[in-house]
Amino acid sequence: MTSPLDPLSAKRRGETAARTAGASPGISRLSFNQITAERASLNEVVDACARHGVPYVAVWRHKLADVGVKPAASLLRDAGVRVSSVCRGGMFPAATGEERVARIEDNRRAVDEAAALGAGVVVLVCGAAPDRDIAAARRMVADGIAELVPYARERGVRLGIEPMHPGFAAERSCITTLREARRLAERFDLSTVGVVADVYHIWWDPELYDQLARAAGLLVGFHVSDWLVPARDVLMNRGMMGDGVIELCRIRGAVDRAGYAGPIEVEIFNEAVWSMPLDTLLPLLKERYLSCV
Amino acid sequence: MTSPLDPLSAKRRGETAARTAGASPGISRLSFNQITAERASLNEVVDACARHGVPYVAVWRHKLADVGVKPAASLLRDAGVRVSSVCRGGMFPAATGEERVARIEDNRRAVDEAAALGAGVVVLVCGAAPDRDIAAARRMVADGIAELVPYARERGVRLGIEPMHPGFAAERSCITTLREARRLAERFDLSTVGVVADVYHIWWDPELYDQLARAAGLLVGFHVSDWLVPARDVLMNRGMMGDGVIELCRIRGAVDRAGYAGPIEVEIFNEAVWSMPLDTLLPLLKERYLSCV
Repeated sequence: MTSPLDPLSAKRRGETAARTAGASPGISRLSFNQITAERASLNEVVDACARHGVPYVAVWRHKLADVGVKPAASLLRDAGVRVSSVCRGGMFPAATGEERVARIEDNRRAVDEAAALGAGVVVLVCGAAPDRDIAAARRMVADGIAELVPYARERGVRLGIEPMHPGFAAERSCITTLREARRLAERFDLSTVGVVADVYHIWWDPELYDQLARAAGLLVGFHVSDWLVPARDVLMNRGMMGDGVIELCRIRGAVDRAGYAGPIEVEIFNEAVWSMPLDTLLPLLKERYLSCV
Repeated sequence: MTSPLDPLSAKRRGETAARTAGASPGISRLSFNQITAERASLNEVVDACARHGVPYVAVWRHKLADVGVKPAASLLRDAGVRVSSVCRGGMFPAATGEERVARIEDNRRAVDEAAALGAGVVVLVCGAAPDRDIAAARRMVADGIAELVPYARERGVRLGIEPMHPGFAAERSCITTLREARRLAERFDLSTVGVVADVYHIWWDPELYDQLARAAGLLVGFHVSDWLVPARDVLMNRGMMGDGVIELCRIRGAVDRAGYAGPIEVEIFNEAVWSMPLDTLLPLLKERYLSCV
């Protein structure tokens, strides 16, 4: 697996730096998705973002739970770091009605947390089938979102449906393509439900650029990382931008044309990245964001 | 990872056995794809198929090369085992024109081998981009197939475009969905170019049943295995039918309705399966094929 410090990286970075989509979106749109530093606390991540001039952070709920919502809101306010999204809601399909109700309730708590932190978006990782019936799971996802929409609308929080790589279809999300996520979002009030485009999940799609164009006005989030070669574990195969095969600039250009001008989250599940000290990771991440996205 | 001998298997098998697509297609259509016994020679596989009443084998070229084409043809004829397909052609995209020409030439050899063995189909694993430009790779695939078609037509061998799971997009095939494979096949003479449907690669697709219906008359192969949970290594995550989450009967029913009545290949990349003696593996495989497909 290529590490961010692999000697190949410089060459690969050079290839990516041959931009196809105009100027960098700039640091003012950069968000550090805190899963990129899975071993750090929210306090450590917020401090590091403030120190390194990263204006946004995406907050994960298991990290937020360690701190508490009110202390976290103060911490973020004091540091001058804004929240691009709360990760994650979703996980709607379940084997029993009782469990599905419990999951809606948990999604309401995610909406409350987003509202309390001033985050505009809750990212929905929609969930997988509890058995073999993926069509039934997809219906449970649509029903779950329908039930959540009024609560989110009242609190001014948008729900971002994130289509996930088909490698996750059995365990994390039965919503696997941009087309499917867009058509699902279009069933709801577009001021409340949108789509999150994550390059890792969608780069392989033969309809990618067509579907991004059709998602104009619907995008509520854009996540970047890279797809490393060779791929092994599909969850942990993400790499630093520039270390893999994704045409980041081209995709970012299409996201621009679809009208998305919000924060761009860097979200990397990768052991080598998780092992880097934040004061090494953040300068590298900023440099790659500026040169590769 | 669930093994074929996992105690959960019996329960899972029971769930799958609740058929949704009518009677089993029967042993007369069963083909043993020899990668399911990666550690055995072609001789061993053919002998075992004959001994266990499996009428077809799918032959891999690296195994065929160990034996030689003429001796293999005699071996198969003597054993009364037919060849459902030759795996694999494809791998069209390459960084240089010279290399692309060499790959077309190698595909012609695959067609020759299929003709010599009486196999109706060469399975195309189309290949991945040699760099980040997946759109250019897709054009190289289309160009490569166009160049190969006259040679295949003259020899009465069909080319089966196999869309592969998006987890392989960076390393094995830039053709990732049934829709894309079908539209590519439709650009050519339909008596020479078709589509191979492998449940492992396509089960997650929200358009699966619609695309299978649209592929009516185009299918030239059907491969079965299962998707194990939890997934780790995307290459080696295949399991024995009934051990995973794929709705095999439902998909097989849709393949039936699309008019495919040819051999059904069992193709499993899995260390536990590869470690089983053929005389244990083949009875298990037959039982699962009959109860789960």
